[in-house]
Amino acid sequence: MELTISQLAEQLGAELAGDGKKNISAVAPIESAGENDVTFATNSAHIAKLASSNAAAAIVQKRIEGADIAQLIVKDVNSALITSLNIFAPKLKAPAKGIDPSAVIAKDVQIGPDVSIGPGVFIDNGVNIGENTVIAAGCKIGQNSKVGKNCRIDSNVVIYYNCTIGNNVVIQANTTIGSTGFGYAFINGEHRLIPHNGGVIIEDCVEIGANCCVDRAKFDNTIIGAGTKIDNLVQIAHNVKIGKCCLIVAQVGIAGSCKIGDGVVLGGQAGLVDNVEIGDGAMIGAQSGVMQNISAGQKVLGSPAIEIRNALKFMSLTKRLPELLKQLGKRVDKLEASKNDKD
Amino acid sequence: MELTISQLAEQLGAELAGDGKKNISAVAPIESAGENDVTFATNSAHIAKLASSNAAAAIVQKRIEGADIAQLIVKDVNSALITSLNIFAPKLKAPAKGIDPSAVIAKDVQIGPDVSIGPGVFIDNGVNIGENTVIAAGCKIGQNSKVGKNCRIDSNVVIYYNCTIGNNVVIQANTTIGSTGFGYAFINGEHRLIPHNGGVIIEDCVEIGANCCVDRAKFDNTIIGAGTKIDNLVQIAHNVKIGKCCLIVAQVGIAGSCKIGDGVVLGGQAGLVDNVEIGDGAMIGAQSGVMQNISAGQKVLGSPAIEIRNALKFMSLTKRLPELLKQLGKRVDKLEASKNDKD
Amino acid sequence: MELTISQLAEQLGAELAGDGKKNISAVAPIESAGENDVTFATNSAHIAKLASSNAAAAIVQKRIEGADIAQLIVKDVNSALITSLNIFAPKLKAPAKGIDPSAVIAKDVQIGPDVSIGPGVFIDNGVNIGENTVIAAGCKIGQNSKVGKNCRIDSNVVIYYNCTIGNNVVIQANTTIGSTGFGYAFINGEHRLIPHNGGVIIEDCVEIGANCCVDRAKFDNTIIGAGTKIDNLVQIAHNVKIGKCCLIVAQVGIAGSCKIGDGVVLGGQAGLVDNVEIGDGAMIGAQSGVMQNISAGQKVLGSPAIEIRNALKFMSLTKRLPELLKQLGKRVDKLEASKNDKD
Repeated sequence: MELTISQLAEQLGAELAGDGKKNISAVAPIESAGENDVTFATNSAHIAKLASSNAAAAIVQKRIEGADIAQLIVKDVNSALITSLNIFAPKLKAPAKGIDPSAVIAKDVQIGPDVSIGPGVFIDNGVNIGENTVIAAGCKIGQNSKVGKNCRIDSNVVIYYNCTIGNNVVIQANTTIGSTGFGYAFINGEHRLIPHNGGVIIEDCVEIGANCCVDRAKFDNTIIGAGTKIDNLVQIAHNVKIGKCCLIVAQVGIAGSCKIGDGVVLGGQAGLVDNVEIGDGAMIGAQSGVMQNISAGQKVLGSPAIEIRNALKFMSLTKRLPELLKQLGKRVDKLEASKNDKD
Repeated sequence: MELTISQLAEQLGAELAGDGKKNISAVAPIESAGENDVTFATNSAHIAKLASSNAAAAIVQKRIEGADIAQLIVKDVNSALITSLNIFAPKLKAPAKGIDPSAVIAKDVQIGPDVSIGPGVFIDNGVNIGENTVIAAGCKIGQNSKVGKNCRIDSNVVIYYNCTIGNNVVIQANTTIGSTGFGYAFINGEHRLIPHNGGVIIEDCVEIGANCCVDRAKFDNTIIGAGTKIDNLVQIAHNVKIGKCCLIVAQVGIAGSCKIGDGVVLGGQAGLVDNVEIGDGAMIGAQSGVMQNISAGQKVLGSPAIEIRNALKFMSLTKRLPELLKQLGKRVDKLEASKNDKD
Repeated sequence: MELTISQLAEQLGAELAGDGKKNISAVAPIESAGENDVTFATNSAHIAKLASSNAAAAIVQKRIEGADIAQLIVKDVNSALITSLNIFAPKLKAPAKGIDPSAVIAKDVQIGPDVSIGPGVFIDNGVNIGENTVIAAGCKIGQNSKVGKNCRIDSNVVIYYNCTIGNNVVIQANTTIGSTGFGYAFINGEHRLIPHNGGVIIEDCVEIGANCCVDRAKFDNTIIGAGTKIDNLVQIAHNVKIGKCCLIVAQVGIAGSCKIGDGVVLGGQAGLVDNVEIGDGAMIGAQSGVMQNISAGQKVLGSPAIEIRNALKFMSLTKRLPELLKQLGKRVDKLEASKNDKD
């Protein structure tokens, strides 16, 4: 794919400042962009480096003076960046529509129009797949589960029975949806599993990374709200309810029955003990250990997680604490010695 | 499935207090239970809410006075709850007995009676599968491995060669058993893998969640003791020995050659460095970092993990520590100033 | 496989001290070795136990006096150990060369000589597989990806499109290579994915454990340098660059665009926030949280990660800190009381 800068400007609805004749064939960051690349400035560090970039053109929000580079001025740089990346995306063949002959499909499965079902897929009884959805090679979908329209279920994903996946959902490779949660009762000297009669509901526009686990509920459903995005290797336990438009970074672990509001951000490797509630818009820092409820809008960090300002103050102390205490101890020693001398 | 309260009482061997005529079709927690649900009270919070529940009936250990709800009085509420959940479990077709035509089975494999082998399974030479076991779609079982009776190996599980799985074992989707451990020697400027000649032994009644890894041993076997239950995304390294009836919560990491006693509980995201020993009945809190041996019955928390009382004291300090030190510093300043005035 | 001690000495190029007639059939650690085992001493603890070992022979670097056991004296014990383990490795049938009939291979795939492609594999358009490589059962390889020579890609691994795997690479079961990274822009009230036009490059002799994730890059490539070894359940985000001969222990999480030098060691469960740079030879302790750049050769520990000496000092304080502060507070109380008395 190649466009002139002018053609790209047109496609982005951008105002062009500078010469529009050069050809563009890719998007690249400022540092590595070459003469056929368009780059972009989303922050002041980018803007500062723009004059020295080898890119043919830059997507910017305001015209940058002093940079001798063609500029594509747009209202929202990120939006234009996404459009540009899609224009210059690597060309791939679309997955073949229909059912690969090696797939095994139970008798009473309903499959919408324009669905693609890849090699080695197994779809069990009572499953319903919405139109235009791609079930990639090796996926297994259990009884009575439902996958909506325009979904992309990547290779080797396992969806257990009685799970409901909305529309426009992406689930990446090797992820497991609907496994039985970790709920045991200790009876007569052994841990006995509490059966999980509930399911999983994944709402529209959710995106889940690779090698994640979302457990089914004991009762009702484990729910992931519309528009929430989940990174790789994340654990979501039984009966968790996650609101809309959350961001959950890699390796987060959410224990059973947690309730997470809308627009919450959970940093990488953070862990939540069971039954905590996180208010709308709260931000939980990376590696935090959340042991109690977090109010809406609160920002916390640390294990245990505390208000971020306090956490940062504490963290800045860790390096100096042994010396600080030693010095303080010595000063008290001296005061005591002096007092004893005088007594 | 629908039963009257009386019929359910009979099936549970429960004493019925109240009217037994209403129909029950599901189990639900107290807060969300409706008029056709049976609920349960396993703790005092449940008991307090019982009077206001909309449930048709409640499973309880002692008759709760003042609650206008049919009560099913049993010796062990959890046990009756498990029975009830099984009675009202969603109806699913049992996996088909026999070998799906799309499975690939090597020549010298031994398969017991009533085994179900799903689509796309690959079973390599010398494998032995015990009666009534279900090997779900997409599983791969390596040479000379053995899976016992009444096991449930869920979709896309990979079991490498020379692994031994006992009876009544459950392994959930996308888990890997018998991968080569992380053991390298640095020789002539490169990390060279130390071959892993050992295997994995998973004893009876072990249950392992989704997307876990259990590495094979360098020598002998990595062992998971009977009745131990493991959550999702857990890492168990080479040569680890885990005792009986342990509970290992999600995202725990156990490094090489650790020895874990019986009845140990490892909280979520806890990590153990290599070669530590954990005594019987010890409890390791969530996110703990265990760097040394833990005695039987000890409860530890924190990274590094220390006695839980000390850890909680320390953790309660983190929020106040910077201010505490500042105040203490000021008081010492004042004492010094006063002393200097007098000198 | 059985060899006399003399025969083994010959194969290892070892000097034999003691009787060489006994038969050896396995390698075992000193504690558990029996009369047909060869053992090894790689450290002083091993040497101390040698005299009491039941092993038939021991691989050692220097002759150990006073130990009544045949000794195989070699220059590098680890190297001889690796050779011995390979000699006595469990006998397995080699994977069948050629393409299993159940595999689905797109039309324009190039497959080198002596390649083994297992049951249920799916290889998409434009893929290139180098000679002598084993693609085990259930793997999925996306469009235009390339796997080099002598690689071992274990069961159910998913490699997305446009990924490049070098020679002599091992990727263990259920790992995902080339998933789309976690990059979103918040536009008009929703998180919109930033397309990932880049790929993944895994250089020669890299070994990756089970259930790992390596995300593709937004631009350019996520790169794992030659000879780097990665344990299980590790997360490597988009645009990360890892140098040569690093060791990355289980459950590590590396956020986007981190740059890691050569010979770096990342301990288990450590996490790196995005965009940090780790210098050559740095060592990051287990469970560390790295929030800023780490210089070459630096050793850090803790969350936040600080110089290891400081971290250990701080960690040794955690147990005593509440009591220490209390005592210090009391001493200051006393000094103040005494001062007030005198005033």
